[in-house]
Amino acid sequence: MISKTYTKYIQSLHEKKFRDVENAFIAEGSKVVMDLLTSSKIVCEKLLATQVWMNENEQQIRKYSHVKLEVVEDFELDKISALSSPNKVLGVFKKIIEGPIQPKGNITLVLDTIQDPGNLGTIIRIADWFGISAIICSENCADRYNPKVVQSTMGSLARVELIYTNLADWLLKNNDIKIFATALNGVGLENIKGLKEAIILIGNESKGISAEILELANEKITIPKLGDAESLNAAVATGIILSHMI
Amino acid sequence: MISKTYTKYIQSLHEKKFRDVENAFIAEGSKVVMDLLTSSKIVCEKLLATQVWMNENEQQIRKYSHVKLEVVEDFELDKISALSSPNKVLGVFKKIIEGPIQPKGNITLVLDTIQDPGNLGTIIRIADWFGISAIICSENCADRYNPKVVQSTMGSLARVELIYTNLADWLLKNNDIKIFATALNGVGLENIKGLKEAIILIGNESKGISAEILELANEKITIPKLGDAESLNAAVATGIILSHMI
Repeated sequence: MISKTYTKYIQSLHEKKFRDVENAFIAEGSKVVMDLLTSSKIVCEKLLATQVWMNENEQQIRKYSHVKLEVVEDFELDKISALSSPNKVLGVFKKIIEGPIQPKGNITLVLDTIQDPGNLGTIIRIADWFGISAIICSENCADRYNPKVVQSTMGSLARVELIYTNLADWLLKNNDIKIFATALNGVGLENIKGLKEAIILIGNESKGISAEILELANEKITIPKLGDAESLNAAVATGIILSHMI
Repeated sequence: MISKTYTKYIQSLHEKKFRDVENAFIAEGSKVVMDLLTSSKIVCEKLLATQVWMNENEQQIRKYSHVKLEVVEDFELDKISALSSPNKVLGVFKKIIEGPIQPKGNITLVLDTIQDPGNLGTIIRIADWFGISAIICSENCADRYNPKVVQSTMGSLARVELIYTNLADWLLKNNDIKIFATALNGVGLENIKGLKEAIILIGNESKGISAEILELANEKITIPKLGDAESLNAAVATGIILSHMI
């Protein structure tokens, strides 16, 4: 049985302001929780799971002897979960301690106003797939610890560094690295290959990249369009761009 | 003021069984509703919108003089909407009358058990971007008229034909066309270009393509992975594959 206080504490972590105060966040579902447990960059405060889940995962969980476990009933999980259909396990984790970011010699993604949590999570997962270790986010991007972001990273959360900062300042500080931006009348993607060092700008889906930021780009690139859709989902566009450029 | 009966009717359209009985579905938000209105393949039964929206879109709406309009209050929209934050307009549409599908000489997407509505909608939008006119879905794919699918197509819904059928039967009937499937140890995507005719299989995200269907593929293709993520989102993978192969 979870105490009322701890229930309230977990529920408060659904909101950014409390995650910031407590320096903690929640993750749900076996895949995501297990991936975070194996990460050396992240500390688990507590795992709350159903008896069935505990039995199924006993061996794996034993490896993390320092992690506090609590068996919960399904109705308790319903109360603390941020999902509409709660999973069998929920972990409370301390936020990741970020290392320094090294754009020199690497590919860095820069996100301007990606506000949909599902999109941000999916972009983190894509970055992890393509071996990109750092993402720079504008301050108005979705919070990386939003439960929906955590969910859609599918375990990639701790493998990609994220920094929230003023994009213009950050880009100006790194102006020795070529900056690519997606735009309507740019160079066809198929002409750019094998990049080892670059900054790639991804813009807000409905508004694109803001004018101030777009001005700082060195080259505009375009995903060739053969049909009638007006635009592509921001995460899909990111996947396509990275698959061609790297 | 919407009648109680019509309110209940619209609410019933949130569920597949009633959409099937009524042969109707709902779409929400200016972009999606406007795109469906302009389609010759789709009939609008009624548009329900706030006074503010009606004023803003008066000129455009006049073009569709046959469409019945009803001004609704925000609280009424809350009641009939399938979205957590309702938009200013909701349209009730009759289902699309499908034309015949012509896989010969074209690229056709075949989806095996894409159950997430957001993924299906995003895949329809991607198909529209790349000029693909037909998608074959296994019978257990999400319903194309699910409000979340409609929403995430961003207006591409009526521009792509969808058929729900037994995939194995359909593939066997079209066995003169080369079938590509995404798999772990396939040919690198970068080696396949400029396809004009092909069937491309996309599988369920956690389970992939079912063994029975995978057996029917002529060539396996792989999205090269440079990092640690276990998989890519199904819609992102579809976008990457199409951007390389077409």
